[in-house]
Amino acid sequence: MRAVQLTAPGTLEVRTVPIPELGPDDLLLRVGAAGICHSDSFVLALPFPLSERPLTLGHEIAGTVEALGAAVDGRRVGERGIVYLCWSCGACRECLRGNENVCLAAGRTAMPPCPGLGPDGGMAEYVRITARSFVPIADDLDFAHAAPLADAALTPMHAIRGAMDQLWPGATAVAIGIGGLGHVAIQLLKALTDTTVIAVDVDPDKLALATECGADLALKVDENIAATLLELTGGRGAEAVFDFVGADATAQLAVETVAPNGAYRMVGLAGGHPGIDSGPAGGPGLPWGATVRKSYGGTRTDLIDVVALAAAGKVRAEVELFDLADARTAFDRLDSGAIRGRAVLIP
Amino acid sequence: MRAVQLTAPGTLEVRTVPIPELGPDDLLLRVGAAGICHSDSFVLALPFPLSERPLTLGHEIAGTVEALGAAVDGRRVGERGIVYLCWSCGACRECLRGNENVCLAAGRTAMPPCPGLGPDGGMAEYVRITARSFVPIADDLDFAHAAPLADAALTPMHAIRGAMDQLWPGATAVAIGIGGLGHVAIQLLKALTDTTVIAVDVDPDKLALATECGADLALKVDENIAATLLELTGGRGAEAVFDFVGADATAQLAVETVAPNGAYRMVGLAGGHPGIDSGPAGGPGLPWGATVRKSYGGTRTDLIDVVALAAAGKVRAEVELFDLADARTAFDRLDSGAIRGRAVLIP
Amino acid sequence: MRAVQLTAPGTLEVRTVPIPELGPDDLLLRVGAAGICHSDSFVLALPFPLSERPLTLGHEIAGTVEALGAAVDGRRVGERGIVYLCWSCGACRECLRGNENVCLAAGRTAMPPCPGLGPDGGMAEYVRITARSFVPIADDLDFAHAAPLADAALTPMHAIRGAMDQLWPGATAVAIGIGGLGHVAIQLLKALTDTTVIAVDVDPDKLALATECGADLALKVDENIAATLLELTGGRGAEAVFDFVGADATAQLAVETVAPNGAYRMVGLAGGHPGIDSGPAGGPGLPWGATVRKSYGGTRTDLIDVVALAAAGKVRAEVELFDLADARTAFDRLDSGAIRGRAVLIP
Amino acid sequence: MRAVQLTAPGTLEVRTVPIPELGPDDLLLRVGAAGICHSDSFVLALPFPLSERPLTLGHEIAGTVEALGAAVDGRRVGERGIVYLCWSCGACRECLRGNENVCLAAGRTAMPPCPGLGPDGGMAEYVRITARSFVPIADDLDFAHAAPLADAALTPMHAIRGAMDQLWPGATAVAIGIGGLGHVAIQLLKALTDTTVIAVDVDPDKLALATECGADLALKVDENIAATLLELTGGRGAEAVFDFVGADATAQLAVETVAPNGAYRMVGLAGGHPGIDSGPAGGPGLPWGATVRKSYGGTRTDLIDVVALAAAGKVRAEVELFDLADARTAFDRLDSGAIRGRAVLIP
Repeated sequence: MRAVQLTAPGTLEVRTVPIPELGPDDLLLRVGAAGICHSDSFVLALPFPLSERPLTLGHEIAGTVEALGAAVDGRRVGERGIVYLCWSCGACRECLRGNENVCLAAGRTAMPPCPGLGPDGGMAEYVRITARSFVPIADDLDFAHAAPLADAALTPMHAIRGAMDQLWPGATAVAIGIGGLGHVAIQLLKALTDTTVIAVDVDPDKLALATECGADLALKVDENIAATLLELTGGRGAEAVFDFVGADATAQLAVETVAPNGAYRMVGLAGGHPGIDSGPAGGPGLPWGATVRKSYGGTRTDLIDVVALAAAGKVRAEVELFDLADARTAFDRLDSGAIRGRAVLIP
Repeated sequence: MRAVQLTAPGTLEVRTVPIPELGPDDLLLRVGAAGICHSDSFVLALPFPLSERPLTLGHEIAGTVEALGAAVDGRRVGERGIVYLCWSCGACRECLRGNENVCLAAGRTAMPPCPGLGPDGGMAEYVRITARSFVPIADDLDFAHAAPLADAALTPMHAIRGAMDQLWPGATAVAIGIGGLGHVAIQLLKALTDTTVIAVDVDPDKLALATECGADLALKVDENIAATLLELTGGRGAEAVFDFVGADATAQLAVETVAPNGAYRMVGLAGGHPGIDSGPAGGPGLPWGATVRKSYGGTRTDLIDVVALAAAGKVRAEVELFDLADARTAFDRLDSGAIRGRAVLIP
Repeated sequence: MRAVQLTAPGTLEVRTVPIPELGPDDLLLRVGAAGICHSDSFVLALPFPLSERPLTLGHEIAGTVEALGAAVDGRRVGERGIVYLCWSCGACRECLRGNENVCLAAGRTAMPPCPGLGPDGGMAEYVRITARSFVPIADDLDFAHAAPLADAALTPMHAIRGAMDQLWPGATAVAIGIGGLGHVAIQLLKALTDTTVIAVDVDPDKLALATECGADLALKVDENIAATLLELTGGRGAEAVFDFVGADATAQLAVETVAPNGAYRMVGLAGGHPGIDSGPAGGPGLPWGATVRKSYGGTRTDLIDVVALAAAGKVRAEVELFDLADARTAFDRLDSGAIRGRAVLIP
Repeated sequence: MRAVQLTAPGTLEVRTVPIPELGPDDLLLRVGAAGICHSDSFVLALPFPLSERPLTLGHEIAGTVEALGAAVDGRRVGERGIVYLCWSCGACRECLRGNENVCLAAGRTAMPPCPGLGPDGGMAEYVRITARSFVPIADDLDFAHAAPLADAALTPMHAIRGAMDQLWPGATAVAIGIGGLGHVAIQLLKALTDTTVIAVDVDPDKLALATECGADLALKVDENIAATLLELTGGRGAEAVFDFVGADATAQLAVETVAPNGAYRMVGLAGGHPGIDSGPAGGPGLPWGATVRKSYGGTRTDLIDVVALAAAGKVRAEVELFDLADARTAFDRLDSGAIRGRAVLIP
């Protein structure tokens, strides 16, 4: 089968590899679509090898069950679904409480194993997955729009869920960065809350997409963006700020515009520093009572819920499709900021 | 009457001033005791004038009602009590929900008005307070031990309350800095939770106090302190870390030792930087799901609850008493780290 | 001025009475509109006198500030607003936490003082209110649609808020009884959650109103209604059931159709018995983990939030207007079930 | 091997039966101790057969791993542990969120499969369990004291956890019925909260046990018990009432003594009716905002936490030991109310 593999730092190759073999608790999935995430770009750009062998990328996977491992119960060939990306231990305290996205087995700051980042991923004709990670989708949801749910919808869903106490009717939610995750986040905020949703980006096209997705306001970043947001919120700031970029500038903007007792969620992984300090508040710093949280992925329940939202037409990823063979082109467009919504590979 | 006043940057004077006059909703309190807080030191050390007139310091106040404003209802002369330090607007959204400590009226990052930091405070023979800020205490609680409840107990109570989801039985709570707030925090953690409480300080005397207060472990800071804490928690970190210092080193320690989905609360105001970033976790940084929060003061309910805990003998501030006239000596001892527990002035 | 007064059990009279005098913390409101609630009917039907003197009814009040008590701050003549109906002590534990609707001062099972049920109410040309109970409204919200917010929107808002943990996307919410509160509840559920909302009533006109208000399904009660609801929810029941009637039959329906770990909220005051028992679950009884709660009124924050929802056009009470002089007719229509939405008196 | 079996309604026999065979995901446990629960008595007293074949009773099981099913990972022969009693589906929404005790697979009001109530239980020399249900215990915790943790500690732990919002410092918690669950509940309340704990029972010996377990007050039931509880709580009632009996009288007592916004948890299964109605509160009925909840078992996390509490010496079941052959005698003593704490069978 064909697979998009990371073969050396910075090198992406479409290679022919064997169809994966299954363990007793695995499924073989015929891939219908695989989304490309900024974290794939991040991995591709790493200056050191991520693994000793070529690694098939792809953790946003939709497809059809093609074969079942010997011990798999309750699934059948032909089922359509997507893949939950946290392949967690299932036994640690966080897993037992349903928080598989912060599974403790991998270590204090590691992510749980994730297809495409350890095990081979879904940018291929077939992928081996754990049976437990399969989540069925509705018959009329096409794979191209289903795949991004696995991360581009899951991750903002989790970040939003953890801020529901702040997202009361009339509150303001700010989404910074209207890319793959951000444009879904706006739809989720409108579906799940009665907040005023403000989108912030540097790119007018992204802001237009935000408006289509339901944003009440779409603001282009300029040197007064923090002041503008404060003015729009009566000086108190936004009750929730979701940063889908994570650069120094966006982290700083979040700190300066979140309200007292508000929620600032770091979702984008660009490595920016929010620059908070423990001194008495005052000036443009972090206000009292606001929480800063680094949000990773989501729970299995979050995924089931976004699948239901998609089935109900409340959430729909904007996608740009590429043939598997054109993966490199797709990555390049993503890196240059040219993708509107999510880039998705079709094997 | 005599009052300890900040008369110029760095200058503390015991002066004779008129007894305050009352507005219709005020009480005159004959001060029984007034605690000294690191924030008083902080204010004293500011290089610019805090106000145009001499300011009487002191926001940890216990005393007896001496006179009532014309419109005051439900209070009587002779009642003993302490003073709730957030003199909030009572009308903003946060006040209406009981979160008077993050009152929005003063601005996004300001504190609500507080006696001793704006209005004259309690390091004096008498103090004018708002009637609403008076909280009665039990007859057998002496003023010297009551005064520190107003901040040294209130503030950790609020920080702990906001982390109760993390403080399940068997979890680990770390208290960094066993001064005025820290030594009360340990007592509160033992009274309110079934966690393992680890105290961390540089000073063996403070650690001895921590042990007396019920800490399960008391660790002297050395270059391996983070590693030691991780080892004691099976590598996952502490479910809650309360930093009562707030220096660079303590903030960094908190980031490196809090568990995934844990709570790091910044309480001390020393201006340190926790140094978090939005990059993929890994190494010694902030783990996924952990929240960082700058905690200020507490709610009126928190204060009522610590008064009840004190009445029940569950919480007792360790105090060192000074005559009002010896305020300068008390401040000097506090600044040098020599105070065990709380320094309290007795008029 | 004219006022609709309860002068003896069952007797309603439109009488001429003096304009109320103000205490120092009161406002005089020129009434723009006053809603009629089932609880007014309930009081009118009581076989014993509610008070020794004639009582002006009416706790859903909108109007304009006409005069201010001597000590009132922060209000001005000419402001338009509605009245928060819980005139609570402001000092008990529940009030301090913002739960003024369950103020402890009145006793364990009493309601806090409420205009129209103790103090004179708003079915009159003028009403005296506590200054603290006044909540401003937007200029373009007319009094007739504003008045019902004070109870018909406040009360379901509070009941819904207390069930947000159950109202996840894809969950089912059932509203039983589509009268004054029920038809607003449906709008609130659609605005605040992404649940499937099912309306249940005996009257086809009420069900048509439910559909206009956004209900996903509107079911006429028949002998299979419980079975129908279970079938619609895959046998598990509805995550939240709001009973706005409170009769034996509706209470029983709620018990039989709420899901495990679901929320059954008793809002209607018809005195019905849910008939739950402590035996092992099984059959049509209350499932494990479901909570039953008698919900009364709401908090001041809830009221502010429904005012914001009304300003944003998300919530709009359906009203039928009557002249103050026709109060008896309005009550009769309400008692016969003929009112669509809320009956509102206009002085 | 010997096993205590229910062979016909009301008939208990100690029979010789084959050692159970294992499926691939099972463990064989050599039973060290098996507790007897009121629900076992309940099952024994049913007038109809519970199953077509003789059923080995016993759902409070402690023992040693003797053999592993072919697919079991992460366990080894010789491990000591107890058995989590909810053998849930692991796939429904509630299971995914960690609420395995209200697993939806069995139906709206059913319990999930439980050893001793469907599958054979632990009153035998060996028992087959699902590998997932095994929870390790500390080496120095003997089986006799470990077994009751599986239900007598788990069940009150879960009921208490669900009421933590009510159990603030200074609040009052009432435990009605100081039997197997009640005497552990008192220890849990003292370990986990700073509440005043009041024990209520008809039997002076049970009240003496309550006092040993840490109850602040132990009250014998008389005709004034409700009035006494109200007087002790300043008229407002207890913030949380746990009814471990569940008879008409205890249910009624709970309704009459729970505070506004309080928590009444039905734990005992005696089939009593709380007699609540939807009318305006007033008199001795259910106050506004209080929640009534039928609590069943607990989560796996709850069990892990009580095991930790037992290891730390915070919780210790009072036990009376019987040889397996004397099961009938043990049941008779339990039914007559003569057991102090928990009756435990030792094979």
